[in-house]
Amino acid sequence: MEKKPSFALALHGGAGTITRASLTPHMEQEYRAALRQALEVGYKILREEGSALTAVEATVVHLEDCPLFNAGRGSVFNKLGYHEMDAALMCGKTLEAGAITGVRNIRNPILLASEVLHHSDHVLLSHPGAEDFARNQGLAFEPDAYFFTQQRYDQWQALRDTDVYMLDHSETGEKKFGTVGAVAVDLAGDLAAATSTGGMTNKNFNRVGDTPLIGAGTYANNKTCAVSCTGHGEYFIRHVVAYDISCLMEYKGMSLAQACNLVVHQKLKQYGGEGGLVAVSPTGEVTLPFNSEGMYRASWVAGGEPLVGIYQE
Amino acid sequence: MEKKPSFALALHGGAGTITRASLTPHMEQEYRAALRQALEVGYKILREEGSALTAVEATVVHLEDCPLFNAGRGSVFNKLGYHEMDAALMCGKTLEAGAITGVRNIRNPILLASEVLHHSDHVLLSHPGAEDFARNQGLAFEPDAYFFTQQRYDQWQALRDTDVYMLDHSETGEKKFGTVGAVAVDLAGDLAAATSTGGMTNKNFNRVGDTPLIGAGTYANNKTCAVSCTGHGEYFIRHVVAYDISCLMEYKGMSLAQACNLVVHQKLKQYGGEGGLVAVSPTGEVTLPFNSEGMYRASWVAGGEPLVGIYQE
Repeated sequence: MEKKPSFALALHGGAGTITRASLTPHMEQEYRAALRQALEVGYKILREEGSALTAVEATVVHLEDCPLFNAGRGSVFNKLGYHEMDAALMCGKTLEAGAITGVRNIRNPILLASEVLHHSDHVLLSHPGAEDFARNQGLAFEPDAYFFTQQRYDQWQALRDTDVYMLDHSETGEKKFGTVGAVAVDLAGDLAAATSTGGMTNKNFNRVGDTPLIGAGTYANNKTCAVSCTGHGEYFIRHVVAYDISCLMEYKGMSLAQACNLVVHQKLKQYGGEGGLVAVSPTGEVTLPFNSEGMYRASWVAGGEPLVGIYQE
Repeated sequence: MEKKPSFALALHGGAGTITRASLTPHMEQEYRAALRQALEVGYKILREEGSALTAVEATVVHLEDCPLFNAGRGSVFNKLGYHEMDAALMCGKTLEAGAITGVRNIRNPILLASEVLHHSDHVLLSHPGAEDFARNQGLAFEPDAYFFTQQRYDQWQALRDTDVYMLDHSETGEKKFGTVGAVAVDLAGDLAAATSTGGMTNKNFNRVGDTPLIGAGTYANNKTCAVSCTGHGEYFIRHVVAYDISCLMEYKGMSLAQACNLVVHQKLKQYGGEGGLVAVSPTGEVTLPFNSEGMYRASWVAGGEPLVGIYQE
C-alpha cells in the first residue's frame, strides 16, 4: 500500500499554444529554471511545517516577480495601455477567501488578496477601491515602469488599434493564457490555492476573468481539493470549473484525477474551453491536466522528485 | 400522478430582518403589490411562449424600476455617496452568462448584463469599462438623481462617517440584504436566472458581492435548476451557493427542494450565512427557502395561483 504523502505542492505559469517550435532552447531553459525556483520556494515552506496558505502565497509572489509570466511584473497591457491585475487566495481549512480584480500598480496582487482574506469582512474588492484598501494595509506599490516588459509592449502595439484581444502574447495566431497559480497540502493536512494574472493583452471594458472568482479559477476545501486554473477564463466561469472538481469528488466520490480529467478533457473541451489547472487532494495526490498544447507547470510531492514540464509529454 | 407543469416563475426582492413589526400595513401592502406586479410581467411572457431568459430579464427590469427594492432605481448609497450596481443573467440552455459589477448611472443593470451575454465574448465586465460597453450598446443612462430615494439617503447619512456598512437599510441594527432576482422555466423547458443589486449601504473599497458571480449568486442549467440568491454575499461566494445546488442535484440526485434546503438551512446556517434564494427545476418545481426572518418573494406555477410572501409563514 502506498504511503500517504505528508505534503505536496503544484504550480502553473499559464497554458496555451506552447510548443517546442515556439520556444528557443534558451527561453525554454529560462522558463524551466523559473518554475523550479518557484517550486523550491513553496516546498521549503511546507517542509519546514509552514502552512499551505503561506506556501502558495510565497510561490505565487515568486512567479509574480518573474517577468516571464503574465502576473505582477511582466503583466500584459490592456486596451488603454496599462496593467490591470487580478488575484485570489483561498484557505481550504476555513473556506475563507480573498480576491481582487482590476488593480493597478500593486507590486504583488496575491499579497493584496491575502490582506482581503485576513483583514477584511469581504471576499472580492475591485479597482480603485481595492487599491485604497491596499494603501490602508501598507502594501507595496510600483510605478508603471516596474511592470513593463518590451515583449508584452510589442504585443500590445500590434493589437492596440484593433478590437482583438489576446489571452497572452501572440503574433502568429497562437493562444496563450497567461496566469500563475499554486496549490498545496501541508503537514497539518490543510489545503490552499492561489492564482494571479495580468489578464489579456488589449483587453477592454475592464473584463474580469476566472482568476479572482472563487469556485471558477480558484478554490480550496480540506474535504476535497485545492485547484488553480489557467485558460480561456469565460469558459472556466460558465462551468464553475474549480468548484465543479470539488463537487465531483464530494458528491460523486471521484478521485482528484478522475474529476480533473473529466472537467478538463471532456466538459471544458466539449464547449471549446481551452486551458488547464493544477490540483492537490488532502492525501497529497497531485494532478496537472491541460487540454492545450502546453502548460508551464511544476509539482513536488514530499519524498519524491521535483517535476517541471512545459509541453505535452 | 401530478401533472408536469408547463412553466413557472419565482422572484425575490431581498431577505433579512423583515418582520410584521418592522413594516407598517401600508408598506406591506406596497411591497405585496410590487411583487405581484413583477410576477405578472414575467408570467405573461412565459404564458405567451416567451423564453425564460426574456421573462427573468423583464421581471428584474420591473423590480429595478421600483424604488422599494435595492437594485436599479432605489439602490443604496456606497461609502462615497453614489450608487454602484451589480447584475447577472444566465441562460440554462446554452450556459451563456453576462454580468457586470460596480456600474454607475445605468438605468437597468440587468439589461447591461444581457448585452454582455448576447453581444460580447466576455462574461463579467466591471466599472468604467462596463459603462463604456453600455454606451457602445446604446443602453439608457440616468443622472444620479434618478436613483435617489430619501430613505436610502437617510440610511447612508447615519453611517457615512463610520466604518459600518449595511447590507440594506437599518437604523436599529437589523440586517437586510437588498437584492432582486428571478428564475424561470419556459414552455420549451429552458431555464434562466437573473439577479440585480445596489449592494450594501456605505460599502467601501468597491466590494463585489455574490450577485454578479456565476455559480455564487446566479446560476442556470437546463439539466438541474435556475437559482437567484439574496443574502450576506460573502458567504454565498465562499460556498458557491447557486452552483452547489446544481451539483447536489446532478451528482447526488437530490430534488430541487432537498438541495436548496440543505444549502440554505444547513450549510449556510452552520457558517452564519444569512439569506435565501429562489429556484426552479426543469419540471417546474419551485422553492423559495430563506434562513432570515423574512424574504420578499413571489412565485407562480402554470395553472396554479400566484403566491406572494414576505414573512416566515
